[in-house]
Amino acid sequence: MISVVIIGYGNVAHHLTSAFLKAKNIVVKQVYNRSLNKLNNLKIKILKTNKLSELVDADVYIIAISDDVISDISTKLVAKKALIVHTSGSVDIKSLHNKQRGVFYPLQSFSKEKEVDFNEIPFCLEAENENNYLLLQQLATSIGKKTYRINSEQRKYLHVAAVFVNNFTNHLYTIGNDICSTNNIPFEILHPLIKETSAKINYLLPKDAQTGPAKRSDQKTIENHLQLLNKQQKEIYSLLTKSIKKTYE
Amino acid sequence: MISVVIIGYGNVAHHLTSAFLKAKNIVVKQVYNRSLNKLNNLKIKILKTNKLSELVDADVYIIAISDDVISDISTKLVAKKALIVHTSGSVDIKSLHNKQRGVFYPLQSFSKEKEVDFNEIPFCLEAENENNYLLLQQLATSIGKKTYRINSEQRKYLHVAAVFVNNFTNHLYTIGNDICSTNNIPFEILHPLIKETSAKINYLLPKDAQTGPAKRSDQKTIENHLQLLNKQQKEIYSLLTKSIKKTYE
Repeated sequence: MISVVIIGYGNVAHHLTSAFLKAKNIVVKQVYNRSLNKLNNLKIKILKTNKLSELVDADVYIIAISDDVISDISTKLVAKKALIVHTSGSVDIKSLHNKQRGVFYPLQSFSKEKEVDFNEIPFCLEAENENNYLLLQQLATSIGKKTYRINSEQRKYLHVAAVFVNNFTNHLYTIGNDICSTNNIPFEILHPLIKETSAKINYLLPKDAQTGPAKRSDQKTIENHLQLLNKQQKEIYSLLTKSIKKTYE
Repeated sequence: MISVVIIGYGNVAHHLTSAFLKAKNIVVKQVYNRSLNKLNNLKIKILKTNKLSELVDADVYIIAISDDVISDISTKLVAKKALIVHTSGSVDIKSLHNKQRGVFYPLQSFSKEKEVDFNEIPFCLEAENENNYLLLQQLATSIGKKTYRINSEQRKYLHVAAVFVNNFTNHLYTIGNDICSTNNIPFEILHPLIKETSAKINYLLPKDAQTGPAKRSDQKTIENHLQLLNKQQKEIYSLLTKSIKKTYE
């Protein structure tokens, strides 16, 4: 049995707590949050506190709060002998001021409303000794399936790669949607194409899946497209076209 | 029963022909291709030709060839009284020099190897009178489900929107993959995130689904990310970050 205390109660903490509560070999002993209001809305029977001095003992403390306060909160936990981990994609393990420290980063975009299937989510784990790593692995596999050993340096790169494939991709969807609605075209016409484009990564390297006028260096189509776009869209179209051409030259 | 002749034998023509051959109310009378070699490899029993003068009569001629030769080939069919359509996303209906003309554009990215489920593919249809439009709709629903009335002006915009959500998105995947492989990170860690990002469009407008440092104007994370990127990646990161910020300011 692994006992955990959850620090913070944002989206990641919420979904982790829900999953841990259902796991056989995990006991969630307490949830801490700066404001009790947020915790009092929880319907789960669990010890709640807004005072760090009231934290009970546990095997693992999971800090799931904003990046910029992780380091700060970790200093309040230096007396604890347990393993202290954070769940962030972009904070170095060294930002934790604890003897036993680690990272427990579930790589997914969480929203409060939508239920999460942790079996589909990769856990990127880091620890400074093998026992702690195995403990994190046990924690992850109690609610999920896939674990990866990713150090802080790699995690930084993973996080920026995630910005490209998630945040920036979503912004391209926004532009696609804008172009459609300006021209009274239902955006749903593009849904199957979006689905297919993302599904292709399962059997093709994205580099090998590339199609379109930039890949073909079809200058005539490129010129025609540019004429249809506003200034901002044009800039993005030109830069990505240049980058695609360069990739295949 | 609708009789069709297919002009050209690239990916789109190939998949359309396969689907029409299985449809109850369609008869594919002939396939034309410039080179007979390509056609002789086909195992289907069907009339094949490489001479436009040998084309048999049919209700609809479907020109599924490269954009830049559509207009040219249509002039060779001016004697036909049937409906002549092309399948291109970016060619105006007026490029067809025929009395009865239309557009039959299945919006998807086709590859030869992968089987196509036309039930999932939107057909963007255009014709200059209601009878011809209904004929195209019948043709589309004989192999698929979703049809949309999209005129040539709208289709131009739809096509450039498709470049954003398909070609450019795929290029962002390539960049994500590059960043991962340079740092010995398995790209598969990002697969669930890519899947989730694309699935979100089914229940959220992309504008409302946006997350990440640009959306939050988290300048510290943005600066950290920029330091990890090469020149080309940095340019793309900066421009898309600027565009996201502008969208939400």
